[in-house]
Amino acid sequence: MINKLILNIKKTKAPIVVGLDPMLSYIPEHIKAEAFAEFGETLEGACEAIWQFNKEIVDKTYDLIPAVKPQIAMYEQFGLPGLMAFKKTVDYCKEKDLVVIGDVKRGDIGSTSSAYAAGHLGRVQVGSQSYAPFDEDFVTVNPYLGSDGVNPFVKVCEEEKKGLFILVKTSNPSSGEFQDRLIDGRPLYELVGEKVAEWGLSCMGEDYSYIGAVVGATYPAMGKVLRKIMPKSYILVPGYGAQGGKGADLVHFFNEDGLGAIVNSSRGIIAAYKQEKYGKFGDENFGEASRAAVEDMIADIRGALENR
Amino acid sequence: MINKLILNIKKTKAPIVVGLDPMLSYIPEHIKAEAFAEFGETLEGACEAIWQFNKEIVDKTYDLIPAVKPQIAMYEQFGLPGLMAFKKTVDYCKEKDLVVIGDVKRGDIGSTSSAYAAGHLGRVQVGSQSYAPFDEDFVTVNPYLGSDGVNPFVKVCEEEKKGLFILVKTSNPSSGEFQDRLIDGRPLYELVGEKVAEWGLSCMGEDYSYIGAVVGATYPAMGKVLRKIMPKSYILVPGYGAQGGKGADLVHFFNEDGLGAIVNSSRGIIAAYKQEKYGKFGDENFGEASRAAVEDMIADIRGALENR
Repeated sequence: MINKLILNIKKTKAPIVVGLDPMLSYIPEHIKAEAFAEFGETLEGACEAIWQFNKEIVDKTYDLIPAVKPQIAMYEQFGLPGLMAFKKTVDYCKEKDLVVIGDVKRGDIGSTSSAYAAGHLGRVQVGSQSYAPFDEDFVTVNPYLGSDGVNPFVKVCEEEKKGLFILVKTSNPSSGEFQDRLIDGRPLYELVGEKVAEWGLSCMGEDYSYIGAVVGATYPAMGKVLRKIMPKSYILVPGYGAQGGKGADLVHFFNEDGLGAIVNSSRGIIAAYKQEKYGKFGDENFGEASRAAVEDMIADIRGALENR
Repeated sequence: MINKLILNIKKTKAPIVVGLDPMLSYIPEHIKAEAFAEFGETLEGACEAIWQFNKEIVDKTYDLIPAVKPQIAMYEQFGLPGLMAFKKTVDYCKEKDLVVIGDVKRGDIGSTSSAYAAGHLGRVQVGSQSYAPFDEDFVTVNPYLGSDGVNPFVKVCEEEKKGLFILVKTSNPSSGEFQDRLIDGRPLYELVGEKVAEWGLSCMGEDYSYIGAVVGATYPAMGKVLRKIMPKSYILVPGYGAQGGKGADLVHFFNEDGLGAIVNSSRGIIAAYKQEKYGKFGDENFGEASRAAVEDMIADIRGALENR
């Protein structure tokens, strides 16, 4: 799947991913009104609004982008209807030939990680039948439990040609509280990065490994170091836009080949119509505002890479 | 909810929790046959078998135990029908007056953790209505992202009188890979333990905090140290039984008041009928085998606490 991700990136010339992390407050009133008219102010109503919102954004941007990253928490918070909307979104994006990165941040002891890996990337066996329940292309994984929490995901990636992005240095303000603590003079995130490189060796695609890393756009200096520690790992870079990252900060997340990183923006794209800059589109044309925001983001990052 | 957990523990004199982590291979053939006859060898069929299995074990043990801990991965692996079985299990256990610890190990950046906290412990707002989608009593949380990944969970606990168990030292063999690394001469898990104690201060119940910790039964010496670092935090102790922990190893997870820890067993209880020791019950009476295993576990831990 890393080969397909890279192919999509080369095709679109856009090393970006759109985070489909809908909050009800991002969704234009007319979409909510329509959904509530049909389903009431219920979990089902909320999830119909989320689905219609996602669909419009995907329809208006899919030809420009290689991948999407739905954050499962934004669906899971609405219970079962929310997870139905998540699944519908995953399936729809795959129909549009987008690579789907399930931002699930799972991770547990071995047997439990096996279950998560089967449910999100692989298949489960029921008697003589097997099923691929969520069937994302990549998922994000939390490394706190160490190798035997990660290995079951790696195993499924080998079998199914799927991929991972493992949390190394996250984009949030307090990520340093544990991740930056020095161990033998080096921060914990570097040790995790070394492990990511090691785990990735068993799962090589053509040029890059199926096992990548998450490193926040908000920490560009650390990204530069981690780029060298994990030369064959794709880096998923959250924190662009609304969280503060800019294109010029991000060049060192990329390798010299112009590959090796994919930058995520969520709110900055999906709620673009709420920004003054894209206000001219109006609520009704929120999908067009998202398209314009995608075009601007691509230009920002392309420009930064050309001027590196 | 910590007060209710302690009340249930005092009432049953059993500081234990049954891990409802069903694998299809644990479920007796006659239960699966019946479910598959109705729903086919489908995800729905698998989940009907899981639900019937859980229900029987709960029916046969609920009067002996204070709490259950369903591991959501074992349900999530079956997609939406699996999560329906999870929700049904949570609701049924609450009807039986059991405290429900959702073993979800979530954790993300602030806004995302807020969504998980709302979905699992709190409420989501949809227009003028609000809903409690999963509504567990406690959840487990991964601390890798630091305070701003944990605080949204703490906030919902304050509002809803719910609780957390934060991963400090996990029970799996490779947990030391990152958790044991020395920072200023002390292992990372101790720093996380100190943070748990700090986060817990804002959320005190009568004697213990709403914010507890996970420390594996497989690391009793570390449990002893962590007990002192987090005197007001309840410790959820996985790894008893099938993973290797024994009652005598666990006394130092408890405070002098005989409280402060709750020991989980999953496979050792729910698949007891497969052990030679409980083989006499036969597959048909797997619930009775689980009851006998619960009684033995309680006796083991009570005995160890009396002889400490």
